[in-house]
Amino acid sequence: MKRNLLLTPGPTKIPSDILEALARPIIHHRTPEFQNDIRQVTEGLKYVLQTKNDVYLLASSGTGAMEACVVNLLSAGDKAIVIEGGKFGERWTELCEAYGVNAKVMKVAWGHDVNLADVKKLLDADSATKVVFVAHCETSTGVTTDIKAIAEVVRKTNAVLVVDAVSSLGVINLEQDIWGVDVVASASHKGLMLPPGLGFVSMSPKAFKLVEQSKTPRYYFDLIKSKKAFAQVDTPFTPAINIIVALKTSLNRIKSQGLQHVFAEAERLARGTRLAAKALGMTLFAQESCISNVLTAINVPAGIDGEKLVKIMRDTHGISIAGGQAELKGKIIRIAHMGCVNEDDIIMGLTYLEQALAELGYKFTAGAGVKAAREFFNEVHTYGTK
Amino acid sequence: MKRNLLLTPGPTKIPSDILEALARPIIHHRTPEFQNDIRQVTEGLKYVLQTKNDVYLLASSGTGAMEACVVNLLSAGDKAIVIEGGKFGERWTELCEAYGVNAKVMKVAWGHDVNLADVKKLLDADSATKVVFVAHCETSTGVTTDIKAIAEVVRKTNAVLVVDAVSSLGVINLEQDIWGVDVVASASHKGLMLPPGLGFVSMSPKAFKLVEQSKTPRYYFDLIKSKKAFAQVDTPFTPAINIIVALKTSLNRIKSQGLQHVFAEAERLARGTRLAAKALGMTLFAQESCISNVLTAINVPAGIDGEKLVKIMRDTHGISIAGGQAELKGKIIRIAHMGCVNEDDIIMGLTYLEQALAELGYKFTAGAGVKAAREFFNEVHTYGTK
Repeated sequence: MKRNLLLTPGPTKIPSDILEALARPIIHHRTPEFQNDIRQVTEGLKYVLQTKNDVYLLASSGTGAMEACVVNLLSAGDKAIVIEGGKFGERWTELCEAYGVNAKVMKVAWGHDVNLADVKKLLDADSATKVVFVAHCETSTGVTTDIKAIAEVVRKTNAVLVVDAVSSLGVINLEQDIWGVDVVASASHKGLMLPPGLGFVSMSPKAFKLVEQSKTPRYYFDLIKSKKAFAQVDTPFTPAINIIVALKTSLNRIKSQGLQHVFAEAERLARGTRLAAKALGMTLFAQESCISNVLTAINVPAGIDGEKLVKIMRDTHGISIAGGQAELKGKIIRIAHMGCVNEDDIIMGLTYLEQALAELGYKFTAGAGVKAAREFFNEVHTYGTK
Repeated sequence: MKRNLLLTPGPTKIPSDILEALARPIIHHRTPEFQNDIRQVTEGLKYVLQTKNDVYLLASSGTGAMEACVVNLLSAGDKAIVIEGGKFGERWTELCEAYGVNAKVMKVAWGHDVNLADVKKLLDADSATKVVFVAHCETSTGVTTDIKAIAEVVRKTNAVLVVDAVSSLGVINLEQDIWGVDVVASASHKGLMLPPGLGFVSMSPKAFKLVEQSKTPRYYFDLIKSKKAFAQVDTPFTPAINIIVALKTSLNRIKSQGLQHVFAEAERLARGTRLAAKALGMTLFAQESCISNVLTAINVPAGIDGEKLVKIMRDTHGISIAGGQAELKGKIIRIAHMGCVNEDDIIMGLTYLEQALAELGYKFTAGAGVKAAREFFNEVHTYGTK
């Protein structure tokens, strides 16, 4: 049997109890039984989102949830700011452009931190700004943006803060209510360990006022329909039933471990991976000040073909990691720490990363990467034991 | 263990081999392995759709696929005709309204046939009509519309014909290319025996010209993005991976049985159900000339509470059938003949329909419904044996 280890930043490995839940006989969605499921996943998502806001379920991928934010919060001509430091920041910009939103794009060098003063300056420059869009974890670069700090700036203005937490939710801390984040968009196939196909949006009452004002034409993603349905423990259209059913298993798993433990485990895997990369003489793409625990982006050494590296890992060794996108094509590799990825997976990934690097002629101390990670994992078993 | 039989017109029963396929370890979508899956499901969907057109896969429910048709084919102010004979015809109207399309709504009495002369008259009255929208099977009433006849009328004009085949695809015959249907929108959770979450649209080159002209803002459902990705055996955004993987199993099942056999089986179940209803002294909601083999809508006898009937069937007997929607609430029940529903399921459904009717005080010859269906099924084993 061929090895098939998924270390990509979405979709991520699905544990067997969730796979089993996905294979249960389907139930009808307009039944008390499914209403119970909606209630349970709503409560569970509120726990993970750390919010008391409504959570609207959409049958879509993460981009659908992002589109729902744009078309519901803004009308053509409305002003917004996009903090753009990678491919997923660009997605907010593209969505704004598609719907005629007047978006001021604040470019952040890929891999670098957001300059808070710049955000403040842009907001101060135009009090008509209705929305600030930002990615929590920029999956294309391995950067985590300090949402708490940005929220502190945005909450002093009339604008609402919309966070793409597609890859970060349930992996790193995001305290929606305490930090004052108005809107969070996320999806099923990253930290929640499910197949893609379920998107969702949690929204504060302040943000929902914008929904009521928005004139952008919409139907499938209309959150006014979602809010009405939510009040009836229903969805406006046929939901992604089996993902919602399996989400109960996912959320129970997260709850039973505790959010802090889940975050600590991702951090542990990320730290081990970073140490391994350095021990192999490689550098990390993201600046240290904003490096993410969601995934690790490693610079491909000079002279090595990064696309070939990813291909060898996958086709020869059965381990899927991600390469770079757009301007980073062939230049970085990305290893995810989301969901049920564990230290054995990371060790296995590093083992064959070393082998693939050797096959491509990269010079390094064989075993140094695995050794560094293993020693770290031996030392730091769980959060706070070091 | 509680009985849990799904006779609702979507979602429908999922056979065990497809459930098993849904539970396979997830694979990444940007891999040669998944490209093979896309190739296979595209070929299979073309077989079921009876078309050579491209098929664009969307991570959405059926309504998402319908929205994709409206936003891609038309701009605000464009003229369209909606043939509206039930809840799903109304959905086309609502979508047109949401996007500012100037839709002429041709109301058809619920349960009744479309008057072809009326369609022709409307088309002749305005040569600027760009699109005609119609449901193949109107799931809310149990009516099948004669798409072949409508296509003959529409193909003589500049308009393109867009058919909602969400509930009909793979259940009753729809010859997209031979009949000259320009666009078909459908989804995974009816005849294809999968969970909801995968929508798709097949589109003729004539229709795609409208896509290139449409100015309606769109992003997630932009079929120009889909067409570009399709050419690369890819999808523009993260697809519904595990449904696509399981769709291979579904399509293999349909292919191995043969489309004609699949259609004949639905017809056989529908005829048996109709005979049973009549034997119980009940009448059918749809007119005989347009009665559907996709599902059977039965009028609830006078004095019987239809909502209670559905509730007793479900909560006491573990059999889910559908009630009526909107103006038909409490007035009809609906039993599906889609996908892997078989004669044993229908017999079981009828057995407890009789019991529930008796519990509600309806007077009839006990056993007459089951007897009528059983005798018909005994006589007509497979297509053409009678």
